[in-house]
Amino acid sequence: MKKRDIVTFLSDYGLQDEFVGVCHGVMVRIAPHLKIIDVNHNILRQDIRHGAIVLQQSIPFLPDSVHLAVVDPTVGLDRRAVALETGWGETFVGPDNGLLIPAARSSGGIKRVHEIVNESFLLRPVSRTFHGRDVFAPATAHIANGVDPSELGPALEEEDLVQLEIPSAWTHDDHLHAEVLQVDRFGNLQLNVFRPQLEDIGLDGGMSIELRLEGHRLAVVFAHAFADVKAGDFVLVEDSYRYVSLAVNKGDAGAKLRARAGTTVIVGPAVN
Amino acid sequence: MKKRDIVTFLSDYGLQDEFVGVCHGVMVRIAPHLKIIDVNHNILRQDIRHGAIVLQQSIPFLPDSVHLAVVDPTVGLDRRAVALETGWGETFVGPDNGLLIPAARSSGGIKRVHEIVNESFLLRPVSRTFHGRDVFAPATAHIANGVDPSELGPALEEEDLVQLEIPSAWTHDDHLHAEVLQVDRFGNLQLNVFRPQLEDIGLDGGMSIELRLEGHRLAVVFAHAFADVKAGDFVLVEDSYRYVSLAVNKGDAGAKLRARAGTTVIVGPAVN
Amino acid sequence: MKKRDIVTFLSDYGLQDEFVGVCHGVMVRIAPHLKIIDVNHNILRQDIRHGAIVLQQSIPFLPDSVHLAVVDPTVGLDRRAVALETGWGETFVGPDNGLLIPAARSSGGIKRVHEIVNESFLLRPVSRTFHGRDVFAPATAHIANGVDPSELGPALEEEDLVQLEIPSAWTHDDHLHAEVLQVDRFGNLQLNVFRPQLEDIGLDGGMSIELRLEGHRLAVVFAHAFADVKAGDFVLVEDSYRYVSLAVNKGDAGAKLRARAGTTVIVGPAVN
Repeated sequence: MKKRDIVTFLSDYGLQDEFVGVCHGVMVRIAPHLKIIDVNHNILRQDIRHGAIVLQQSIPFLPDSVHLAVVDPTVGLDRRAVALETGWGETFVGPDNGLLIPAARSSGGIKRVHEIVNESFLLRPVSRTFHGRDVFAPATAHIANGVDPSELGPALEEEDLVQLEIPSAWTHDDHLHAEVLQVDRFGNLQLNVFRPQLEDIGLDGGMSIELRLEGHRLAVVFAHAFADVKAGDFVLVEDSYRYVSLAVNKGDAGAKLRARAGTTVIVGPAVN
Repeated sequence: MKKRDIVTFLSDYGLQDEFVGVCHGVMVRIAPHLKIIDVNHNILRQDIRHGAIVLQQSIPFLPDSVHLAVVDPTVGLDRRAVALETGWGETFVGPDNGLLIPAARSSGGIKRVHEIVNESFLLRPVSRTFHGRDVFAPATAHIANGVDPSELGPALEEEDLVQLEIPSAWTHDDHLHAEVLQVDRFGNLQLNVFRPQLEDIGLDGGMSIELRLEGHRLAVVFAHAFADVKAGDFVLVEDSYRYVSLAVNKGDAGAKLRARAGTTVIVGPAVN
Repeated sequence: MKKRDIVTFLSDYGLQDEFVGVCHGVMVRIAPHLKIIDVNHNILRQDIRHGAIVLQQSIPFLPDSVHLAVVDPTVGLDRRAVALETGWGETFVGPDNGLLIPAARSSGGIKRVHEIVNESFLLRPVSRTFHGRDVFAPATAHIANGVDPSELGPALEEEDLVQLEIPSAWTHDDHLHAEVLQVDRFGNLQLNVFRPQLEDIGLDGGMSIELRLEGHRLAVVFAHAFADVKAGDFVLVEDSYRYVSLAVNKGDAGAKLRARAGTTVIVGPAVN
């Protein structure tokens, strides 16, 4: 494998503790030349789906590198550790619980898979509770050093991996059954809806669209930018990942609606 | 332009989402040699003034570099993106909404300004909502690679820029009309007051000084260090940026007083 | 002294403000080649003991480097600034308040100590409130540049340093008097108990163990992994630093029990 200078790192470790710092330390001890990009460490605790969504969306903007991702609620049990190589030459390292799948699939597909079991590339003894530090970070750094994933353990088939799919909104008559993919710092709700799906049910820019979620019923316009509506008003925009997003101009839609990742949303024409 | 090895980065993106990580990714893809210093990403949401204050105070301690700053409440509307070059050779990149002005002014003044419009240096298509990723980060990285700001777009005059001034306390008779510039993690309230302004109204170290804010009336001594007063007591000190700061020794003044950036404070002699 | 490429950095500065970013800036100005690993900046505010615990536990996983640590409640008073060199060749820089002691002791012991007073290696004028920026960061960067600690100030004896010991659980009859060392993002309570201490009082894996803390009385099994018990159940595990840790599988033990660092815990056999 070619040597890499860059590793990206995503996790649900948070920044309250030393978990992220210690993983950096482990990687730099093994590969002192590394530049590590922290993608996000505030994935919702143990929420594999949230991690998978953020990882998939981030990848197009990250350099060609080894991508370390850890959201690992079943650490210490017998879930596998894996390294995936994709058609576009990216390598993903993390737990075999679905976390890596959507990102790897949209990076040219999964080309080969190796389990990570060779203890000569791990920190020994491997703890029961912190495989980020003892398994995933060292494996990542060794791969960045040029170690071929095949040296880490036996090959697996793609079908052997735990699967995970990020749900797409589905159409029923004149409305969409959607859900919230994530809520960001600004309180914007990213829906699993692409603009063409709205157009398919006859909804378009400038029209008033009805959303039902968490007991609320909102009539919202689909605009170009947050600030196209008055401060405090709801607005739908196409977000920077091309998903339809529900926001409040200069406000916090998530707090206002008490919505969060996974909240169900019905999207249809506004009737008055 | 000379090539630069370092970029600094300030924003209101927070660390809850992948926004900061993705901007790092974009910059490193364009300029793999870059070292990126994260100055602060917890600027109060969409608070341009807060961002401007923190940026201006930080600059003297940061290396000569390209300074990327993004607090951008009107993203997607027609506010301009700009690169400013200062008399001391710093380059600032960000939205034309006042954010960069105080820092650039105190870095030797604004020497030249270019709008950022040349799409060959941006991520295309430019989204409506995330210009940090699509406009400012790539422009910053290209400048660090040696691209002259004039290649990014037409020259502007300094007067064309949206202006912003950080307010100074003003004197009325024997007291100062001041305000809170910011509240830090320790709950210390930084006031827009320099020590000489206190001395001008006859107040000095060791004297009891009255502060009125948020309905509170406090008599506080101006001391050398937090720990010059008992734990739990209020104290005024000259902070590390030479502003007068209101603190509670081993406590949290901000929480105690429910004060925050922008809170009005009257400072005068204590009468008993 | 040999030149170093890596510095690690731990503090209670938080990431809400620009404190950490500014310290990075100061170090990179002095030593542009530096790679800085942020170990943890969310040490509980002004909690020297918490900082000392996290620093000591992190060190084995960090590269050989200069370790900057700042938790500094008495900044501005006459507490000393020090650089410690250890038997294993690590250098620690920080306040002389006990913070560095446990980590340095477990890195081969303290070999030599120098006070940091030579202003030609500091930012002048040194502020009263931000020695991280003005004293510790510049001293760290100069040491990384190869400056010998002896150039920073006079030698001190180890006995002259403010001491700090991380408490160990103690045995009384058939139970242990323990305490919580820290609570992590996942709500896991790390106790100051090693597994052999449990075994010495006849408690072992699989057995039901009673814990009393904060008015609660829990019967908990000592298992291999969090997920060995049902979701929502308490469980004791050996954590990744080999301490016994109290957790809730897929839950938050800290929130459930309202426990925090320093909480007293009695550990003994479960009686029914």
